[in-house]
Amino acid sequence: MAQDPFDWIDRHHARRRAAGLVRTLRPRPADPSLIDLAGNDYLGLTRHHEVTAAAAAAARRWGAGATGSRLVTGSTELHARLEAELADFCGFEAALVFSSGYTANLAAVTALSGPADAAGPGPLLVSDAGNHASLIDGCRLARAGTAVVPHADPEAVRKTLEAHGGPALAVTDSVFSVDGDAAPLAALADACRAHGAALLVDDAHGLGVLGDGGRGALHAAGLAGAPDVVATVTLSKSLGSQGGAVLGPARVIRHLVSNARTFIFDTGLAPAAVGAALASLEVLRREPERAARVRYVAGELHRRVTAAGHLSVRPDAAVVSVRAPSPEAAVAWAADCRAEGLAVGCFRPPSVPDGVSRLRLTARADLSDRQIAEAAATVLRTAPAA
Amino acid sequence: MAQDPFDWIDRHHARRRAAGLVRTLRPRPADPSLIDLAGNDYLGLTRHHEVTAAAAAAARRWGAGATGSRLVTGSTELHARLEAELADFCGFEAALVFSSGYTANLAAVTALSGPADAAGPGPLLVSDAGNHASLIDGCRLARAGTAVVPHADPEAVRKTLEAHGGPALAVTDSVFSVDGDAAPLAALADACRAHGAALLVDDAHGLGVLGDGGRGALHAAGLAGAPDVVATVTLSKSLGSQGGAVLGPARVIRHLVSNARTFIFDTGLAPAAVGAALASLEVLRREPERAARVRYVAGELHRRVTAAGHLSVRPDAAVVSVRAPSPEAAVAWAADCRAEGLAVGCFRPPSVPDGVSRLRLTARADLSDRQIAEAAATVLRTAPAA
Repeated sequence: MAQDPFDWIDRHHARRRAAGLVRTLRPRPADPSLIDLAGNDYLGLTRHHEVTAAAAAAARRWGAGATGSRLVTGSTELHARLEAELADFCGFEAALVFSSGYTANLAAVTALSGPADAAGPGPLLVSDAGNHASLIDGCRLARAGTAVVPHADPEAVRKTLEAHGGPALAVTDSVFSVDGDAAPLAALADACRAHGAALLVDDAHGLGVLGDGGRGALHAAGLAGAPDVVATVTLSKSLGSQGGAVLGPARVIRHLVSNARTFIFDTGLAPAAVGAALASLEVLRREPERAARVRYVAGELHRRVTAAGHLSVRPDAAVVSVRAPSPEAAVAWAADCRAEGLAVGCFRPPSVPDGVSRLRLTARADLSDRQIAEAAATVLRTAPAA
Repeated sequence: MAQDPFDWIDRHHARRRAAGLVRTLRPRPADPSLIDLAGNDYLGLTRHHEVTAAAAAAARRWGAGATGSRLVTGSTELHARLEAELADFCGFEAALVFSSGYTANLAAVTALSGPADAAGPGPLLVSDAGNHASLIDGCRLARAGTAVVPHADPEAVRKTLEAHGGPALAVTDSVFSVDGDAAPLAALADACRAHGAALLVDDAHGLGVLGDGGRGALHAAGLAGAPDVVATVTLSKSLGSQGGAVLGPARVIRHLVSNARTFIFDTGLAPAAVGAALASLEVLRREPERAARVRYVAGELHRRVTAAGHLSVRPDAAVVSVRAPSPEAAVAWAADCRAEGLAVGCFRPPSVPDGVSRLRLTARADLSDRQIAEAAATVLRTAPAA
């Protein structure tokens, strides 16, 4: 080979290494030896015996894969049941299941960005500066303009919509992954309605945690089922499974079936994941106190770290984010926690838009009071010197 | 609500309906009543007892979900085993598993499109006009220019690379989904090497079907493991599961871990899907004749429909595509097959770039000679009048 077409990868790697930004995989064993405050299994359902039994039963009855795209052979009656159950639980007219929350977000943003046929100004996406990567990629893929607005700022959305004066879709996370803070959904919906815009909310971190019995942030805000509101959720966090879904008016869901590329050209979600999500919804209906418990655990973790003087945004859901003085200190802090038996997350640039590194603790409904106290003590004991 | 922000959806729907292009879901029961020539379960493994048992066992042992992104808590030792086994089986140095083939393609195209730091011309993606939607979306998302070249035309790739004179990545399916024809991989690799470009091949329809014992189109072309070649595969077709993977040089895979957005910001593949894909690879190693059988079945289907005067491209893998006189005729033909107990696919605009509608038959290694004869007879008996 005369030339090496991937030589730039080595240069790129050397720069990342010098900046301390190389990431490596750390495969974990089946039996956890650590207390897990790093994953997103908020309700402790991913190893719940009813949920794993449902996954196993679905694989045996329906096969290990969906065998094709949803429009060809990949829609089973199990998929239809999950879609009906998700819509009913969260209070929406209809739902559509995807193989991931990522592809659900790509579908919703690209296919709902607005009419290509309108006279006057073209469609505009109005996107919160703190939105998840999958929403950002959706905006990049959509055939619409994008205005990025300051984080959690309904007034900025209002002004942007007013200046645009054409069809628009405002796009936001319900709970932001970095700081665990909630979007001002009611004010955002007001701003949208004042200008005839639609609102798309990624409730990945709200489902199972916020709202009556975990029905989500849209349900809590009285926006579930509204004709101008669409939600996306993930099945891989509170529901302990894999996949994503879009929830909304029936005509919106019907539109996605015929138009969303990540729906049409992707293999359907595997039956085991569908069955597991259905079982988790059943547990959550029966034990709605799990949603309140995870919020309590997050509050307790926050109370303990701030009482010791650490900076942490008050958690609106399950994510508790604690500021670290530097990327290096955040990495060392997380490693020290791990050495003491506690898995925590670590956010550093470029994953944090503001450049501030953080320790990230995710609350779980199945943590005991003793585990909460131990986890908080470990975080405080290993904290970098101020 | 003063204005209805989704009123354009109804206008769009009316236009699609008038053009006969509305698609609807048809959920299927657990026990198939039809002979399936529509799905992508090429080797008949999705309901293989070892594969479904492995899915069930993985869900019970590892949980129903991966609990987080691959870089946080979503990498289990089972994921690492599948990655090692996929790389070994297909003859590549390393592999990385994704939650779908779609997200694997987005990752490979966007993260490998080329150096942002090069002097001279910026990076160029050279994309076959017949490429899958996920490769096209990858090109749209990448921060590189894209040149779409005529279908399966290495000379066009060569001229495009020569005219560009800068870093480039050529992107192609190995087997094209619409007509089932194969890409001229050896000639494409020559064209790339002559100009220092890399080659990315989506082997979704080649793995399990082409190459020694189903090792794929790259293996068959002597390109597996080459330092300038990267492959993507899906776990949801021949392997009967769900998910996708990128295979390539170790430094390329390491680069994806730190840089591919659909890897970093997506939940890891569910353990059940990982376990099922591992079991399928084990079956395929033990029974390599499955790959030859599916090619034989495709050839037989093709022989019978062309002998009766229908137009069909000679299948290079498992997909047999038969031309239909119109979209309406294709839909009626597929419906008539279904009424006689045979599920077949139906491709029509806008899924077919050339506007020609087709009946699409996918071969399965587990079809008996009698089922092949019956299926072909059904297709011929229900064919539209010439």
